[in-house]
Amino acid sequence: MRFSSDNWAGVSEAVAASLTRHSSGFEPAYGSDELTGRIVERFSDIFEKEVAVFYVATGTAANALALSQFAKPGGAIFCHRNAHIRCDECGAPEFLSNGNRLIGLDGSNGKFSADAFKHALSSVPEGAVMSGQASSVSLSQGTESGTVYSVPELQEIAIAAHERNIPLHMDGARFANGLASLDVSPADMTWRAGVDVLSFGGTKNGCWSAEAVVFFNPDQAEGFAYLQKRSGHVFSKARFVSAQFDAYFEDDHWLSNARHANAMAHDLADGIASTGGRTLWPVEINEVFPVLKRAQVDRLRAEGAAFYEWTVEPEEGSDKLISEDEVALRLVTSFATSPGEVEKFVSLL
Amino acid sequence: MRFSSDNWAGVSEAVAASLTRHSSGFEPAYGSDELTGRIVERFSDIFEKEVAVFYVATGTAANALALSQFAKPGGAIFCHRNAHIRCDECGAPEFLSNGNRLIGLDGSNGKFSADAFKHALSSVPEGAVMSGQASSVSLSQGTESGTVYSVPELQEIAIAAHERNIPLHMDGARFANGLASLDVSPADMTWRAGVDVLSFGGTKNGCWSAEAVVFFNPDQAEGFAYLQKRSGHVFSKARFVSAQFDAYFEDDHWLSNARHANAMAHDLADGIASTGGRTLWPVEINEVFPVLKRAQVDRLRAEGAAFYEWTVEPEEGSDKLISEDEVALRLVTSFATSPGEVEKFVSLL
Amino acid sequence: MRFSSDNWAGVSEAVAASLTRHSSGFEPAYGSDELTGRIVERFSDIFEKEVAVFYVATGTAANALALSQFAKPGGAIFCHRNAHIRCDECGAPEFLSNGNRLIGLDGSNGKFSADAFKHALSSVPEGAVMSGQASSVSLSQGTESGTVYSVPELQEIAIAAHERNIPLHMDGARFANGLASLDVSPADMTWRAGVDVLSFGGTKNGCWSAEAVVFFNPDQAEGFAYLQKRSGHVFSKARFVSAQFDAYFEDDHWLSNARHANAMAHDLADGIASTGGRTLWPVEINEVFPVLKRAQVDRLRAEGAAFYEWTVEPEEGSDKLISEDEVALRLVTSFATSPGEVEKFVSLL
Amino acid sequence: MRFSSDNWAGVSEAVAASLTRHSSGFEPAYGSDELTGRIVERFSDIFEKEVAVFYVATGTAANALALSQFAKPGGAIFCHRNAHIRCDECGAPEFLSNGNRLIGLDGSNGKFSADAFKHALSSVPEGAVMSGQASSVSLSQGTESGTVYSVPELQEIAIAAHERNIPLHMDGARFANGLASLDVSPADMTWRAGVDVLSFGGTKNGCWSAEAVVFFNPDQAEGFAYLQKRSGHVFSKARFVSAQFDAYFEDDHWLSNARHANAMAHDLADGIASTGGRTLWPVEINEVFPVLKRAQVDRLRAEGAAFYEWTVEPEEGSDKLISEDEVALRLVTSFATSPGEVEKFVSLL
Repeated sequence: MRFSSDNWAGVSEAVAASLTRHSSGFEPAYGSDELTGRIVERFSDIFEKEVAVFYVATGTAANALALSQFAKPGGAIFCHRNAHIRCDECGAPEFLSNGNRLIGLDGSNGKFSADAFKHALSSVPEGAVMSGQASSVSLSQGTESGTVYSVPELQEIAIAAHERNIPLHMDGARFANGLASLDVSPADMTWRAGVDVLSFGGTKNGCWSAEAVVFFNPDQAEGFAYLQKRSGHVFSKARFVSAQFDAYFEDDHWLSNARHANAMAHDLADGIASTGGRTLWPVEINEVFPVLKRAQVDRLRAEGAAFYEWTVEPEEGSDKLISEDEVALRLVTSFATSPGEVEKFVSLL
Repeated sequence: MRFSSDNWAGVSEAVAASLTRHSSGFEPAYGSDELTGRIVERFSDIFEKEVAVFYVATGTAANALALSQFAKPGGAIFCHRNAHIRCDECGAPEFLSNGNRLIGLDGSNGKFSADAFKHALSSVPEGAVMSGQASSVSLSQGTESGTVYSVPELQEIAIAAHERNIPLHMDGARFANGLASLDVSPADMTWRAGVDVLSFGGTKNGCWSAEAVVFFNPDQAEGFAYLQKRSGHVFSKARFVSAQFDAYFEDDHWLSNARHANAMAHDLADGIASTGGRTLWPVEINEVFPVLKRAQVDRLRAEGAAFYEWTVEPEEGSDKLISEDEVALRLVTSFATSPGEVEKFVSLL
Repeated sequence: MRFSSDNWAGVSEAVAASLTRHSSGFEPAYGSDELTGRIVERFSDIFEKEVAVFYVATGTAANALALSQFAKPGGAIFCHRNAHIRCDECGAPEFLSNGNRLIGLDGSNGKFSADAFKHALSSVPEGAVMSGQASSVSLSQGTESGTVYSVPELQEIAIAAHERNIPLHMDGARFANGLASLDVSPADMTWRAGVDVLSFGGTKNGCWSAEAVVFFNPDQAEGFAYLQKRSGHVFSKARFVSAQFDAYFEDDHWLSNARHANAMAHDLADGIASTGGRTLWPVEINEVFPVLKRAQVDRLRAEGAAFYEWTVEPEEGSDKLISEDEVALRLVTSFATSPGEVEKFVSLL
Repeated sequence: MRFSSDNWAGVSEAVAASLTRHSSGFEPAYGSDELTGRIVERFSDIFEKEVAVFYVATGTAANALALSQFAKPGGAIFCHRNAHIRCDECGAPEFLSNGNRLIGLDGSNGKFSADAFKHALSSVPEGAVMSGQASSVSLSQGTESGTVYSVPELQEIAIAAHERNIPLHMDGARFANGLASLDVSPADMTWRAGVDVLSFGGTKNGCWSAEAVVFFNPDQAEGFAYLQKRSGHVFSKARFVSAQFDAYFEDDHWLSNARHANAMAHDLADGIASTGGRTLWPVEINEVFPVLKRAQVDRLRAEGAAFYEWTVEPEEGSDKLISEDEVALRLVTSFATSPGEVEKFVSLL
């Protein structure tokens, strides 16, 4: 009953085997090797478009550097008030962008609307030096609340961004889970909907450390290698990331992993609902946020279940109120979650 | 004949096997797992002292963040004029330290002396605001010229640093090679000689990506985790670094690798000397800088040898002058270099 | 009817005369001159405590540098959501503090409560690296809404800050107006209430450019001169600021100026009330925010009145709602405002 | 005998009078006032070209912000090894440019040659990420050694810069002195010679605080206002700078002041030469660097002369060697220096 986080899982057998397979040989460093060349092409195939791809060490680095590429002096980056970049990255986006600000937008289910974004844009009018200037807008797919933006929702936000000449960034730490949830093509969920730059995460979905910044318009990546290098994010043996992606993309391994994780989350949610429990937000990827009785939570813990409690801000609305004898949890599934774990968890409720 | 760089090699079998061995299991993220705990203890055993250890993605990150921990407003960091941190890291130390300056010191064989350092310190007198303030001093062990500082040389520099209340940083991208060269204990080459913080590199010596910042006085590491996180350098699945170090340290694998690489470099140097060639600097680790006839270099290339040409600044002294028909090369050996490659190279001269 | 801003006024005669009086003579630069020494002592007299004083060019510089002195990696600075530092300084605090974040707190009348601050502090728990760390808390006295914190309100916020070991910063762009409003001593409104560092503004109250950062515990100013210099904020002819302050403090000129400005604001507010108009917030310093009929505003403009319209966020509460035919204004008085201007304005309503 | 620095002088009577003259009146803030508009036009007249002008607080701010406008990630800024920006600004250019490096160039008489610059450029080859990228080149006119670049020297450096697509910045803290020395037009000494951006200093030449960044191609100033604001360098009452420049430019007051200062320096130098003394560098502006006997220096001090001793780096060449019983001084004259002071100084030798 291991539901603490998808980054508590190890790596899939396929990824482990690929690392071993690619472990020897003498190859150029810093991404000039043949395998990395092939993986970059693979990205272009997957997105049906020539893309520019840069490996970095962590999802935080991917987000912060992608946003830095579009940063401006006095710049404002718009995102959900609970976005990972705003709450959980120790100010990395602010630091690496030399002080761009993250403007937190309200919005239910972990998502903000195009309208909320447009309203916030008006607080940074063009040419008003004291207010600074709009730099970019960022959303997570899936979100910190375990939900996904629909393609039309993405499109509306992208249109608002492009009207202001700023790019749309997608934090795809759980990109595969979001994709499996919407069941559309990678292109449809990104550049065709107006996404300009993507943090593509593999780590939470079966890799050790495989994160990339993907620019859908390679011209917009000009100079990015310097941002990457000056923050210490150019791997010398870039092959070790490529080796992971080689297995990750083979035979849709990444999508299989994500589908499995999502299915486990749905099974959890269904089980919880069947016992009369409620969840804070719709279950759309591999995260479930149930509200349980404290006695249930104690029993689960006693039986070895692992998970985090979750804090809910009161502004989320009255239906999110947690009573005295209740506890909100976050349960995260992964490629490694077994149906047995889910069954046992539900049976304990 | 693969002498381009030690980061062109893959990983050793032992490291690859360890990654596979540790690939499954559900463990806390961000370095709270049991294996990482054990590896941190292993570092303390190796250095015969309780140390604070932080994994980062690259040697550049290790250097820049270690130096940032001691950065000051208007700060000056002293290092050799050809130091990697000054010439080859795209300004990462300057950027991550919020604009601390790297003051380049002259010195033969890639090393600067305590006297040169003390002279430079006088250009940043205490309390002179316009001049800024001294932050730290950094040296590479082994150096960019393939040499090593003796323990007394390290001690003299450390004493000068500590008299000014600034720490001594050691860039140990090739720490194992330096250690094997001096044949002293890790403690003797670091904190006992006065080193305060070390960039400990495993990547060039048989790992995929295994770099750590090691503080010899854990109190001086206070708050470092925030510097690390805000630049995107906290791995979620930190285990993948620990898994590499687990094999790296087992049965002195790291020292065996380094001794082999150093021995291959010496064989190369001896072979070159036997053909009447000269090297720019003493061969003390796994790098050889021969000056060869252009015809020789062409022949080597034609036979498939891989290496980089090297530029020598004229201030190095008249014995470093490269004539019109000569070329200076950098040859780097590694754990993966075979005696056969060395023999073939020498036979072609 | 010149109510656009107090920084549209020129300088008072006394200040102009002092600049002329001190214009010749050969004196050490960078604040080592005799006059500056005297002015610094004057600050200590005024605050009944030895203080450390640093001149800077602007209020934005004073705020951003004062906060930078206490900045931390991943740091969070708490302030009102409408604070000048958060909305009107083009990200200077974020930039000069290397990416510290400004956490905006809600609160009526332009003020936040100690409770709101404590609640927000809980979002940055100690030791949680992903959340960053609390750096400082900042409030404006008077506020952007023309109100002032009472001494007990200041004390409660200071206590909450000090419990967390972070300092309380006061943005005193309109310090004299706040002081005149509360009618307490400078010491009572600052360090005795728990304020650690003050942006002391003279520019809006009769000077050309006279802003200072005042540390109430000189030990906490250690190294500040380097922050100041590396951002280009050390005047060579510091005397020109001292010359302004010399007249500013003489015979309580600063308090007379502020009392006049505050009185003019009250007269404006009374006049508006007498015509049935309402103001958005209590009038406590030299700013009045009336809600007027659009027809009234048009008439005022036609007669030459100068002012800015003001935008009110809906979260301020239902009594702040501006109807279709209404306009909210900001009217600012200054030392140079004449009773005749006020009378004429009111008579036009 | 006041030769410590030109920033130890006060302000000229004309400048003081202008400040008084412009002290009243209600005018838009932040440079939107009528007087500032006129002064900006005056700059365009003086330079015979439409220029973009921004006031800042100090010469350090002017330099650092001008260079920041052209900064790049991992950027390198080329300048003389003894340049003020490199040695005397507490790392402000590095800090405000987010870590761009200052590459110090050798060169006699405080000047570097186009050849030295081109050689250094080759250390930062285009496209080599590890080396970073060239951002700009900066020279001082006059220099820290009291010399001036000839127009052809400026042109050669500008051509080399533009071949690499980087701009030429001129630190004009003593612009008027340089101009008076060359006796050419402001346009000839700047944009016609290839200068792209100028730090225009008035403070050392008769003002209190009057520094401006001047872009000769207004398109290159795009977005500069944000850089200026986010570092706290937008004066609210910008008029106070304009008031100074109003008198400064009237009737060539600035040139008269500079010619006087230069003439006093020449008189000093002639007097020193007549007593058999030597100077380290040619006397071309308002600075003289004599080498005197220690006994002479003691006598001067005893009689009340004020000046600084000067340290000379040995690499300057054998003719710069200072013997045991000698001392090198820096003597700076200004608009306020009287012939009597010069005579008395010389008579004491």
